[in-house]
Amino acid sequence: MFTKIARNVVCAFIVCLATFAQGPAGGRIVLNPKFQAVQDAIARDHDRFVRELIQITEIEAPPFKEEKRAQAFAEMLRQSGVTDVEIDAEGNVIGIRKGSGNGPMIAIAAHLDTVFPEGTNVKVRREGSRLYAPGVGDDSRALAVLLVVARALDAAKIQTAGDILFIGNVGEEGPGDLRGMKYLFLKGPYKDKIKMFISLDPYGAGNDITVGGIGSKRFKVTFKGPGGHSFGSFGLVSPAYAFGNAVTKLSRMQVPSRPKTTFNVGVIGGGTSVNSIPMESWMEVDIRSETKEELNKAVDTFTRLMHEAVDEENRARSTSQGRIEVEVKMIGDRPFGQIPMSAPIVQTAAAVMQSFGMTPIYGTSSTDSNIPLSLGIPAVTLESGGTGGRNHTLDEWIDVEKTASVRGIQVAAGILLSLAGIQ
Amino acid sequence: MFTKIARNVVCAFIVCLATFAQGPAGGRIVLNPKFQAVQDAIARDHDRFVRELIQITEIEAPPFKEEKRAQAFAEMLRQSGVTDVEIDAEGNVIGIRKGSGNGPMIAIAAHLDTVFPEGTNVKVRREGSRLYAPGVGDDSRALAVLLVVARALDAAKIQTAGDILFIGNVGEEGPGDLRGMKYLFLKGPYKDKIKMFISLDPYGAGNDITVGGIGSKRFKVTFKGPGGHSFGSFGLVSPAYAFGNAVTKLSRMQVPSRPKTTFNVGVIGGGTSVNSIPMESWMEVDIRSETKEELNKAVDTFTRLMHEAVDEENRARSTSQGRIEVEVKMIGDRPFGQIPMSAPIVQTAAAVMQSFGMTPIYGTSSTDSNIPLSLGIPAVTLESGGTGGRNHTLDEWIDVEKTASVRGIQVAAGILLSLAGIQ
Repeated sequence: MFTKIARNVVCAFIVCLATFAQGPAGGRIVLNPKFQAVQDAIARDHDRFVRELIQITEIEAPPFKEEKRAQAFAEMLRQSGVTDVEIDAEGNVIGIRKGSGNGPMIAIAAHLDTVFPEGTNVKVRREGSRLYAPGVGDDSRALAVLLVVARALDAAKIQTAGDILFIGNVGEEGPGDLRGMKYLFLKGPYKDKIKMFISLDPYGAGNDITVGGIGSKRFKVTFKGPGGHSFGSFGLVSPAYAFGNAVTKLSRMQVPSRPKTTFNVGVIGGGTSVNSIPMESWMEVDIRSETKEELNKAVDTFTRLMHEAVDEENRARSTSQGRIEVEVKMIGDRPFGQIPMSAPIVQTAAAVMQSFGMTPIYGTSSTDSNIPLSLGIPAVTLESGGTGGRNHTLDEWIDVEKTASVRGIQVAAGILLSLAGIQ
Repeated sequence: MFTKIARNVVCAFIVCLATFAQGPAGGRIVLNPKFQAVQDAIARDHDRFVRELIQITEIEAPPFKEEKRAQAFAEMLRQSGVTDVEIDAEGNVIGIRKGSGNGPMIAIAAHLDTVFPEGTNVKVRREGSRLYAPGVGDDSRALAVLLVVARALDAAKIQTAGDILFIGNVGEEGPGDLRGMKYLFLKGPYKDKIKMFISLDPYGAGNDITVGGIGSKRFKVTFKGPGGHSFGSFGLVSPAYAFGNAVTKLSRMQVPSRPKTTFNVGVIGGGTSVNSIPMESWMEVDIRSETKEELNKAVDTFTRLMHEAVDEENRARSTSQGRIEVEVKMIGDRPFGQIPMSAPIVQTAAAVMQSFGMTPIYGTSSTDSNIPLSLGIPAVTLESGGTGGRNHTLDEWIDVEKTASVRGIQVAAGILLSLAGIQ
């Protein structure tokens, strides 16, 4: 759910450091011969990485139905040398790579779920170095990155100070409402143990650092009415017309571009037959903002518009069989979170990027990091390398051209190792 | 799909005969002692009629999924003495009660399908003489009427001149597009053999005669666009907003009350997740009118409004990733049909009603009779007795209070026998 636009806009809005002093850990890593061995192993393993990425993509993982992909990913994680791999009560796949015990535990996660419903064609089509499929970038690529990194650490005989948790989590997209992260940090066996967190979201060169979690609220809006026969009851109020009017009003809602504030009508439904006035028409709405103030403002306006549309419908047609009512139910609430630019996790990530000759770009987004950030646990969301586009559409694609693809993975591995500490 | 409102309005519009000369056949029937025996048998059989009506209602029969109810109804028809019962290639249940061969074949039909989708709770709730359940009146009551009438003819040892076809047909509601009738009259084994047709639609006192088939056209309107991430791609055109605007425009479309012309947005759908701009939003629309001219006018306006909404959306937001397009696909087309008031079938029906002390009311509607009427085959749609309301909603109910319920069945049986001729 990482978004370029978000970060670039926010970069100017919150704070933007085009250059950044190298943190000691981050700067040193590229000089470490053991890390060179990690980089070499990642490059050598790239063909398998692409095969696994395709394999993962082609297992459907709709929200709340990540199980099949989770089982396959757990097995792949075991095959990549990660130990104590288990699927927790919420459905997250978690495995450990033990450190020496001299450092804090760090978790690195990619999400299992996609936005696509059951039955979506997830077969990967390859054209040159481009792979096309729903979910191929968001977040299958990052899941495959976890595997190749785990194997590279083994190949290079790396001993870290802290334990590394490798996580394929559920519930990042859509109605999942970050349930995977909420369980991990608030209830699961690793609650209170994870001291740093990295979320890998889709493709991208590798120089983006998400330092703030955008807040979002999600709603299911249901318009209800008496229904009736399309011809016999013509002239009665209809939830479909209240709905249409509400969508139109929402589409015209004014929101600021900075702090970036957005709204979306995603899924819609309702009605029983073409020749019946529906008893129910509903929509799912996503509202986001970079600031809590603007988010609340947008939610207030949105709520008012829903009721306005209902009032107008009740005035426009007959209510003799009943009035239109509306229920605005919150179905998702992602907390805001922000990490100071001076935090070691941010400094280290930036330093590693710079040692690769990259200029870090800082931004905010709505990702799994929202949860640890809202709890005060240092967290960043990073890219997973390569390029791509059109995520959340059936036209989603990524480019796995080797040079750019490998480099992104190496940067992520460098940041992970700098934070975990090579012994 | 019979509608009181329709008929009452149209009564004034087309032609309204509050009194009507008794046709010879219709007037005589009540004096026939054999018909008295039929009436007595109907009254005696009322408890079983109610049991069967409940039994039929509690078998779901969504459009295109009438099979289970069809099988049960076929068996009940056999148990009621009807012979040669079969389910034709389209799914209609058809059985014969042989006449002496001295008269034309007459068919009497009730429809198996309801407007309700699979999974609807169709359990009947009884409060006194009221039965509540989706589909209990439309058209389960009429199906049960066929059974009780068939048994009463046997009980009274009636020999008719013409064969009587008893039909439980598919495809009257929603997307069925009268497929049962189209097959029966245009393709099936009884094509060209049926010379008169009676359709029994929901409950009602028994003095309504539908003499005209209202035309309707049905559409699936699909708005398509490039989709995208709700936050990252905010500002792109959305099919949901074109959809909302289109519904709003349609809700404000001006249509005449005489000739009655109506429109309805029934079922809506589309979208993949709350946090994705949908690639598709769609609706099913029903447009009807009592005249071909007004129907065509309404369809033209509706089509123009759909395109206007698309143009407005393409101007309101960015089309950098693609434009909104709309497809308006016709999914149903019910022909008009009208029978002259002087036709024997109309005169006979009216005369029987008057002999029961009722004042016939004439109207038009959109029922299974549309098909024979459009082919020039005499047809009327009649009520099936009793009272009721709220059809096409989950609150549908009928009253099976014995006096009114029995009387409606007796009237229908009287009309049937007057047309078939008692030997």
